[in-house]
Amino acid sequence: MAGTDRSRELPAAAAPAVILVAPQLGENIGSAVRAMFNFGLTDLRLVAPRDGWPNDAARANASGADTVIDDARVYGDVESALADLTFVVAATARPRDMRTLVLTPATAATRLRTAAAAGERCGMMLGRESTGLDNDSVVLADAVVTVPTNPGFASLNLAMTVLLLAHQWFIVADDTPAEDLSERASRTASKAELQGLFQHLEGELDACGFLRVAEKRPSMVRNLRNIFQRARLSEQEVRTLRGVIAGLVEHGRRRRD
Amino acid sequence: MAGTDRSRELPAAAAPAVILVAPQLGENIGSAVRAMFNFGLTDLRLVAPRDGWPNDAARANASGADTVIDDARVYGDVESALADLTFVVAATARPRDMRTLVLTPATAATRLRTAAAAGERCGMMLGRESTGLDNDSVVLADAVVTVPTNPGFASLNLAMTVLLLAHQWFIVADDTPAEDLSERASRTASKAELQGLFQHLEGELDACGFLRVAEKRPSMVRNLRNIFQRARLSEQEVRTLRGVIAGLVEHGRRRRD
Repeated sequence: MAGTDRSRELPAAAAPAVILVAPQLGENIGSAVRAMFNFGLTDLRLVAPRDGWPNDAARANASGADTVIDDARVYGDVESALADLTFVVAATARPRDMRTLVLTPATAATRLRTAAAAGERCGMMLGRESTGLDNDSVVLADAVVTVPTNPGFASLNLAMTVLLLAHQWFIVADDTPAEDLSERASRTASKAELQGLFQHLEGELDACGFLRVAEKRPSMVRNLRNIFQRARLSEQEVRTLRGVIAGLVEHGRRRRD
Repeated sequence: MAGTDRSRELPAAAAPAVILVAPQLGENIGSAVRAMFNFGLTDLRLVAPRDGWPNDAARANASGADTVIDDARVYGDVESALADLTFVVAATARPRDMRTLVLTPATAATRLRTAAAAGERCGMMLGRESTGLDNDSVVLADAVVTVPTNPGFASLNLAMTVLLLAHQWFIVADDTPAEDLSERASRTASKAELQGLFQHLEGELDACGFLRVAEKRPSMVRNLRNIFQRARLSEQEVRTLRGVIAGLVEHGRRRRD
């Protein structure tokens, strides 16, 4: 049965629909749903699922993404499933007998975002597990997206492909810093606090004779400072290290006594 | 038992090792291996796998990536598994109680490529299915890599995480064109062949009176040319379209007779 048409409710820059054409095992539909929902895709469209719908195995494998399972819509043919969309990519191997635009997942993701931002309704279409999409379905899409793989071992199943495409779509607009320190609760040490550490360390090293060779002292000091500079210490860590220095000096004093 | 040490045989820019710490189900190890090999990763290191090694379920789920299964090495602790490596990322959620560099998968992939290109031996470390990596393992890595997900549904299993990290690593150096036409066997039409098509079409449209409004003719011609220009026709497609034009004209003539 066809679900209710909620396409008019979609926001302008909605996430793309995922259209599974003639999927076979409910388990695989469920794994695809789990992959989708990890990256915020919620519009699942099933074209003639072999084992019917709803499907308990699909729900079990979706690992809690029940909302996507509940809202899935079923269609009798590909044309109806795509009817309200304007930009669709078809996930398939590079077609050898058809002149089609072939995109990498990263390019497809950018195209999907750009189209959605311009108010287009978008989708990614994938074929059945055993045979993929036939050319009559591929020709209804605007482009093919092919995941490049190890030429000696190309073995991506339905859910793996959905996962990779959904992830690429997600990261186009994700603002997670490319690199960051994991916790900001402990404040990064100021340069003054680092200077305090350096002077403490160098003072004790002068006292114990470690820096006694005058011509080597400047580069030795620079190298030591560089090690601690590079570590992006927190002020707590600076205090810990000063405690370590004091502890080592104290230990030496006690041994000498 | 620890495998033989083949680290000396690794080429300078080798793919990173994948270190699974205390994995539980063989099925999951197998799915991780399938994910790895799709993207050319072959160096699997298992730290204290719960169900022992070799493992039939792992082999079955690897879907033919037997070479990775056969070459896997088993270690008693994390330190031994990492011993010959110089740059390791730990896949885990953002640590809240540790000051660590946190990378996105794309940044981690670039770092792994850069380090390997400089001759470093690299790895990605992942924890057991149920609990992930403990902090004593995380602290042995150079950085944490965290996959950003839907804040309302973060449910990536071991193999999904390996798949996403391996894919990101692969595409850093993959030279698949970002967009391309799927088949190059049929030659793209030359501008002269397109001109031939345009003139054929416009000649017939002049003859049938479709372009009879003189002030509209230039923009109408431009719009029609634009449609066919955009399609990046092959020379075979140009011939097909000229046949279509001729067929329509002939059809009209026969009806008139």
